[in-house]
Amino acid sequence: MSEVLEKGKAAKMASYQMTGLSTEEKNTALALIAEQIVADQAFILEENNKDIETGKERGLSNAVLDRIMLTEERIQGMADGVNQVTKLVDPIGDTLEKIEKDNGIHIEKQRVPLGVVGMIYEARPNVTIDAAALTLKTGNAVILRGSSSARFSNIALISSIHRALEKSSVTTDAIQLIEDTNRETAKELFTLNDYLDVLIPRGGKNLIDTVVREATVPVIQTGAGNCHIFIDESAEQTMAEKIVLNAKLQRPSVCNAIETVLIHPVWFEQNGMELLKALREHEVEIYGDGTIHNAFPDSKLATEEDWYTEYLGLSVSIKIVESVEAAILHINKYGTKHSEAIITNDDRHAAMFLQNVDAAAVYHNASTRFTDGFEFGYGAEIGISTQKLHARGPMGLHALTSTKYFIKGTGQVRR
Amino acid sequence: MSEVLEKGKAAKMASYQMTGLSTEEKNTALALIAEQIVADQAFILEENNKDIETGKERGLSNAVLDRIMLTEERIQGMADGVNQVTKLVDPIGDTLEKIEKDNGIHIEKQRVPLGVVGMIYEARPNVTIDAAALTLKTGNAVILRGSSSARFSNIALISSIHRALEKSSVTTDAIQLIEDTNRETAKELFTLNDYLDVLIPRGGKNLIDTVVREATVPVIQTGAGNCHIFIDESAEQTMAEKIVLNAKLQRPSVCNAIETVLIHPVWFEQNGMELLKALREHEVEIYGDGTIHNAFPDSKLATEEDWYTEYLGLSVSIKIVESVEAAILHINKYGTKHSEAIITNDDRHAAMFLQNVDAAAVYHNASTRFTDGFEFGYGAEIGISTQKLHARGPMGLHALTSTKYFIKGTGQVRR
Repeated sequence: MSEVLEKGKAAKMASYQMTGLSTEEKNTALALIAEQIVADQAFILEENNKDIETGKERGLSNAVLDRIMLTEERIQGMADGVNQVTKLVDPIGDTLEKIEKDNGIHIEKQRVPLGVVGMIYEARPNVTIDAAALTLKTGNAVILRGSSSARFSNIALISSIHRALEKSSVTTDAIQLIEDTNRETAKELFTLNDYLDVLIPRGGKNLIDTVVREATVPVIQTGAGNCHIFIDESAEQTMAEKIVLNAKLQRPSVCNAIETVLIHPVWFEQNGMELLKALREHEVEIYGDGTIHNAFPDSKLATEEDWYTEYLGLSVSIKIVESVEAAILHINKYGTKHSEAIITNDDRHAAMFLQNVDAAAVYHNASTRFTDGFEFGYGAEIGISTQKLHARGPMGLHALTSTKYFIKGTGQVRR
Repeated sequence: MSEVLEKGKAAKMASYQMTGLSTEEKNTALALIAEQIVADQAFILEENNKDIETGKERGLSNAVLDRIMLTEERIQGMADGVNQVTKLVDPIGDTLEKIEKDNGIHIEKQRVPLGVVGMIYEARPNVTIDAAALTLKTGNAVILRGSSSARFSNIALISSIHRALEKSSVTTDAIQLIEDTNRETAKELFTLNDYLDVLIPRGGKNLIDTVVREATVPVIQTGAGNCHIFIDESAEQTMAEKIVLNAKLQRPSVCNAIETVLIHPVWFEQNGMELLKALREHEVEIYGDGTIHNAFPDSKLATEEDWYTEYLGLSVSIKIVESVEAAILHINKYGTKHSEAIITNDDRHAAMFLQNVDAAAVYHNASTRFTDGFEFGYGAEIGISTQKLHARGPMGLHALTSTKYFIKGTGQVRR
């Protein structure tokens, strides 16, 4: 039996046991995990260093190496994260509906775990701890499939988690890692319908596209963020500039950073050059449409492809659009339904934009960078869903739950 | 451009217009549809008769022909159904969360339409009206893909719907039918990710399995119901028999009817023969395990395949299981996560069963036939979801909605 199949079966069995765990049992296990990874940090750092060395040999970029790298501080941060999850309210067992029927039947809809969650992710080993903590808190079993570039780190972290679980009432099968990082093991997870209840990819566009295309297991799409800001005719110059710079620069590599700015021609005529200069001063590469490129030679001419591009870095596409309607059309065509903003003093335009732009989060006069589970006060974030089923936008613990109807009778039959 | 692509694009454009529809506008359009199909009934029946004649030539069974057949009464029933939907509370625009942040940002999570719903279904032309009404009420555009066996009926119904919409403020692109019933058009819908937000198959296991396997569009799985009743040692004889007969016989062709009875050996010894005889008196074919088959020769010996089979007719599999734990294991292995019941006077056994059986609806001392959107009081039913994401169990209007975060600021940026 393959590693994936074997671990899938074990996870399914574990998930049945886990439906009976009390909040206290889960929190105790979480606290033990937080403690154990700090206790094991020398070993974890040693194994992490193997990944770093291998990564250097393979010529990984410094940015990627930084994502893989663990330090004492980062391990403490992971442990703190787990302890935060302990404090969150346990959603499992919540009663969502009560229906009393005339025939005496009592129906109750309760929140239950999803069952087995599959997680496929890249580079960052902290996702291993993060995903383990959130799935455990929600009574799910999890199968983790990290990338080869963090393999030693992930194996070390899982062994630490297992040491912790052995002291708890949670089976070690509740949290498992696929150690074989061959492409085939990812593909096996895509179609493990008998044992996986959901598959959550966390990573770049290629990973997510592949999962959506190939998986027969239900998927939650996360993360692709080709986000826009539309600066309307009536936008305040300082507010627009401040928001654009924040949404582009405060953390360019994340999904809620903006990739395209759409500008009303009247606003552009009055304030456009200043904005373009400010962006260039911050070393942002500008891909402009014809008007922008002509007016501002220190820019590149955008291709059709650029409007679709999530740069995740110091680049931005800029286009002049004639109206709020044109902005909406552009965003609904090129966007990824993540976070979209309008800067305007015209409430009618704002309302039209918020209603008609098809995205998880729509903003009026604020930075798109707020789309985040912690910023929204959920105390956790499994990812940011860009699909419309099950969960949309920042996913807290609820996204890792399902529901179940409990019906109690005294012999009732249907007439 | 293919029919599917063309209608997909038109549906997407329609869906953007539909987010702005008021409840009144939607209800007016629904009332017009109800009126129009009754006004057009002569034409609809004429076209339906073509399907019936073609079906007879193709040698369709009487059961299938009955599902296709329309009558004045059935058309009136469809119109009544649409009028019922008019009366349901409109979920769109409901505020689900309000978050005020210290920095003055105001976040509101509201219920919004899904966008474009694809529906692939078999035989029954009433699904055309049903799906049109429910998607319109929830502000979604819909693309319907019925089967070739009801093609004339569906085209007639859609033309009637369009005549109604022309008198309303809803575009006719909101409700479209794929007229080409070639297998290829279904396949095209499976991967129409740019224009479809969800695909809901309604039909037999083969259709649903194909959609799950081949679709890249998000799918809601409905309907497969390999449901069980476990008769525990302490079950009352009369209650157990009454519930088993009801769950098997009241309407054998539907998904919440039972397909397998699991019986505790002690109960079987005392009451088993009587139950088997009662089932045979109602012409139910019995597929028993070794014990049953030996004790009751008027039965067939069940094969491994039989435990997986959804008969949807007058057949039932019966097995002796030693304990509630064994019953749970059997159900979690062979079931389809739909509706599962335990008959017992032992509350501890009931609690164990309800918690550990993995299904949308779990019953203690009641018939599985109650799993139904109307029985649960939702006033509508799009189908019964057997998956755990998005919607589980009977799906009312909420299952056809998503959510969206509306964020209003005064220039806030992230620090």
